[in-house]
Amino acid sequence: MYSHKTKKRVRYGETDQMGYLYYGHYAQYYEIGRVEMLRSLGMTYKSMEKDLGILMPVMSLQQRFVRPAYYDDELTIETTLRKLPGETITFYVEIFNPDSQLVNAGSVKLCFVEEKSEKTVNCPDQLLERLKPIFDGH
Amino acid sequence: MYSHKTKKRVRYGETDQMGYLYYGHYAQYYEIGRVEMLRSLGMTYKSMEKDLGILMPVMSLQQRFVRPAYYDDELTIETTLRKLPGETITFYVEIFNPDSQLVNAGSVKLCFVEEKSEKTVNCPDQLLERLKPIFDGH
Amino acid sequence: MYSHKTKKRVRYGETDQMGYLYYGHYAQYYEIGRVEMLRSLGMTYKSMEKDLGILMPVMSLQQRFVRPAYYDDELTIETTLRKLPGETITFYVEIFNPDSQLVNAGSVKLCFVEEKSEKTVNCPDQLLERLKPIFDGH
Amino acid sequence: MYSHKTKKRVRYGETDQMGYLYYGHYAQYYEIGRVEMLRSLGMTYKSMEKDLGILMPVMSLQQRFVRPAYYDDELTIETTLRKLPGETITFYVEIFNPDSQLVNAGSVKLCFVEEKSEKTVNCPDQLLERLKPIFDGH
Repeated sequence: MYSHKTKKRVRYGETDQMGYLYYGHYAQYYEIGRVEMLRSLGMTYKSMEKDLGILMPVMSLQQRFVRPAYYDDELTIETTLRKLPGETITFYVEIFNPDSQLVNAGSVKLCFVEEKSEKTVNCPDQLLERLKPIFDGH
Repeated sequence: MYSHKTKKRVRYGETDQMGYLYYGHYAQYYEIGRVEMLRSLGMTYKSMEKDLGILMPVMSLQQRFVRPAYYDDELTIETTLRKLPGETITFYVEIFNPDSQLVNAGSVKLCFVEEKSEKTVNCPDQLLERLKPIFDGH
Repeated sequence: MYSHKTKKRVRYGETDQMGYLYYGHYAQYYEIGRVEMLRSLGMTYKSMEKDLGILMPVMSLQQRFVRPAYYDDELTIETTLRKLPGETITFYVEIFNPDSQLVNAGSVKLCFVEEKSEKTVNCPDQLLERLKPIFDGH
Repeated sequence: MYSHKTKKRVRYGETDQMGYLYYGHYAQYYEIGRVEMLRSLGMTYKSMEKDLGILMPVMSLQQRFVRPAYYDDELTIETTLRKLPGETITFYVEIFNPDSQLVNAGSVKLCFVEEKSEKTVNCPDQLLERLKPIFDGH
């Protein structure tokens, strides 16, 4: 298991007239969570695209909206890998408000596509090499 | 069962650098689907908020991303109610591209909250009255 | 002068907690205005990119926010070309609410870039040919 | 004059199929700039709304797009007040890429509206008190 936390503040343009963080914006919070997790492993999604030619389209998304998040709340996005990625990678996400209450929980599954051939491929070695020591240790 | 179709074109600002409709924007397509379904029943979500004082926060969202949607595609959003709403209402959504291929499928569950008391309530009669004849007929 | 009108409804996800259409979303309304104007001339921005290899990055944007637009308002976007495009093209935009009151007015200037060479070029002939008869007639 | 810098990374969902930060998203970067400037003065826009009942709708926006910003760039937003606010407040904004090159420059003018009366009012004293010593010193 590998977990990583990052923070993001709710902006005015992300609220709706209920005064809530609009439900459609959580997908971007999930994106931030997984991208910053990769960065914490010494890898960037940008380099995966640019240097390895690997795209990661989203296959599925599941979200539960537990309680509202409000304007200017600094939310904590906790992103977890429960197992080593293979043909797909699933990130589990929990988002907490400043009172450490759960706001949103869910998961997002992505696959790996070689840009040139437009075919799905396995998780690139560069990512697996970084994850294996973490998962072996547990 | 009650089904309704509406259309929405993919805008430039909704694409990402893969050239796809960004996965986070589908939630807004789902919103458009359910709001236009309500309008087709002679009801608006706006009047539910303003006249009835009922808010409809989203409880959960599930989406499968079947194939990409591209810039300027006019997508068809098909929204379906499979049963009468009670304490919650679930909209099933399928989004098709101009070649009638499935792009995205999922569901979104909402509840009804009385703005004044901030308590969950049952589906308002004004909506049930419109739906009952449709569901009774089948 | 060439003018074109198109409509777009304000969606829940576009409102903010003031209950207004968030100011940052008007840029997308401007995009819709100019793209639908091109379509009314028998041309698509999509084909300019795909078939002609011409990109149109935005150079500048000016907007006055005259009065708020609200949830579910069906706004009218009126887009006007005041002169034939050359190295740049400027669209003047006025957005009206359902009571025909001015909501927002402004302009956006774009240039033409050849994707291959990454150099600015003149307005493509395919667009000029469609505009010249309109401007000559006046 | 009072200047403040804050950072924001370009997210995937903010890019478009040109691979650029979509022009419509800069308005939110401007929002982040001015809100973080207020916070640097010991004030939050949230408290202005909640505690003082003052809303700040945007009156006008001007932006020049100097060069593209790209995915994953950590941009620096520099926000400047050139004079004390009165009936309106104008923020001047410059956005720089990681190579310190200017990406975007512009300004945004807002007014102060008392929520209860829906009337425009002067800049609240709480903000002026924080700014006066800074402007007097220069």
